[in-house]
Amino acid sequence: KQDRYPTRLRQPQDALWQQRQEDVVKGRHLDGPLNGEQLDRFERDGFLFEPNFLGQAELDALRAELASMLDRDDFRDRDFSITEPQSHEIRSLFAVHHLSRRFAELAEDERMVGRARQIVGGDVYVHQSRINYKPGFHGKGFNWHSDFETWHAEDGMPEMHAVSASIVLTDNHHFNGPLMLIPGSHKVFVHCLGETPDDNHKQSLKQQELGVPSNDALRELIKARGIEAPTGAAGGLLLFDCNTLHGSNANMSPDPRSNAFFVYNRRDNACVQPFGARKQRPSFLAHQPDEVWTPQQGTH
Amino acid sequence: KQDRYPTRLRQPQDALWQQRQEDVVKGRHLDGPLNGEQLDRFERDGFLFEPNFLGQAELDALRAELASMLDRDDFRDRDFSITEPQSHEIRSLFAVHHLSRRFAELAEDERMVGRARQIVGGDVYVHQSRINYKPGFHGKGFNWHSDFETWHAEDGMPEMHAVSASIVLTDNHHFNGPLMLIPGSHKVFVHCLGETPDDNHKQSLKQQELGVPSNDALRELIKARGIEAPTGAAGGLLLFDCNTLHGSNANMSPDPRSNAFFVYNRRDNACVQPFGARKQRPSFLAHQPDEVWTPQQGTH
Repeated sequence: KQDRYPTRLRQPQDALWQQRQEDVVKGRHLDGPLNGEQLDRFERDGFLFEPNFLGQAELDALRAELASMLDRDDFRDRDFSITEPQSHEIRSLFAVHHLSRRFAELAEDERMVGRARQIVGGDVYVHQSRINYKPGFHGKGFNWHSDFETWHAEDGMPEMHAVSASIVLTDNHHFNGPLMLIPGSHKVFVHCLGETPDDNHKQSLKQQELGVPSNDALRELIKARGIEAPTGAAGGLLLFDCNTLHGSNANMSPDPRSNAFFVYNRRDNACVQPFGARKQRPSFLAHQPDEVWTPQQGTH
Repeated sequence: KQDRYPTRLRQPQDALWQQRQEDVVKGRHLDGPLNGEQLDRFERDGFLFEPNFLGQAELDALRAELASMLDRDDFRDRDFSITEPQSHEIRSLFAVHHLSRRFAELAEDERMVGRARQIVGGDVYVHQSRINYKPGFHGKGFNWHSDFETWHAEDGMPEMHAVSASIVLTDNHHFNGPLMLIPGSHKVFVHCLGETPDDNHKQSLKQQELGVPSNDALRELIKARGIEAPTGAAGGLLLFDCNTLHGSNANMSPDPRSNAFFVYNRRDNACVQPFGARKQRPSFLAHQPDEVWTPQQGTH
């Protein structure tokens, strides 16, 4: 397949970005929970925040499940879990819809899948899932980036037919490092400089240094539409386009921050060979449709 | 002199903190620009933000002076200037009231000195001065800390009779890493763990790792009064007590952030031998009253 979105380039380019080639909302004709105004908002901004998406009982159950998973010794020091260098506590766990029945149910919940289908315009599968836990006063920020840029370059996702669903399991405010987004940034593809080294994900999951847009591109995009950080009570759902630029700051508050994160990709957009790396990343980062993933032994 | 505030301790203590021993506002009887309500606020919160402290013409002149100072080759790679590791651009310049006539005038301006005198209750001198420039997308945050803790431990400031005056020279908003403060935290002294290594300032001016309060103390103090981040247009004045816990986050925006910073210490509270370090820090970080400071040659 031809590469629609060249990135990880060796040389700076004249243009700061190229136009996005795919439509953003492609399933207006499909039945689903989102109304026309919500779809318009997603189309325009590249994200949609729905407060109070989950009820209190669901939230409590997910939080308990999160706590018990992060506490499992057999998930510690595995390739699909990210631990703190000093404490060896688990901060992120991937492939949670394969590791937990409860998170699998959430991933398959029609409230989630229906929304994703309306946005990408067809049947979806979970490309990646994750839970994050950032304790108070810890948890660094993340530089601005487009997830699609990484998934295209390192996982071989061909086109922009994916949407991320992030459920905040803790209250979000300005001081605990909430996700920040650049509205409208999903309509352009900002290429990044620098060739991808092998096993880049071992570095990038801790601190992303490759796959970061130029300051000039960021400046122009923020000048146009600013920065937004949806904050609010636990249980909200943030849907954001695979190509919306986002980042976060450090958590300066005592309040932990945790969320569950599912990426829905359209089935006909399944990953092929990576467009900007020599080999694909491990499957816990990029599942195939209908893949039956289990933790492999000896992946320390 | 006896050490009222032991810190840089080897062993964790039972108590999270000790009570502050000095009053906060000590010059209510003195004439000055602050009214009773403002002094009450400072007493209660440990800081006071005054928007529109400077007029546009003053602001423009200070910005021009800041730019020309950061551009001076003879200030580059000197001990009193902090440069970026990669670009060698100056990001912080100390002792600016000795380096620049305009900043000296600002430091001596009766609007500034009068406020400081009302707060600390007597004649003051400039213990430290600094200008900072953080470009967009750069400029890391700073962990929570009390300046007094450092000045006491490393500079030998005996008691809490100092106030910092920070003039924001650029617009401050939630995304360019504004100063965050913990209201009320100035009323307790939170000791810190870990002995001070020699020349600690070479590390601490880049990233403070020593002199950081415990998470437990921070959690309790934030639970009581929360976090505040005064934001607003350029030209505002932030006065904060020497012992108010503060920190900042990274600048995620394209907008640079710069400020001019003066610490007024009461003349009878001049620094003696450090209480938590083997030797005093260089004088560009801690001036004596009436000191005539000039950049020394060969301090690369």
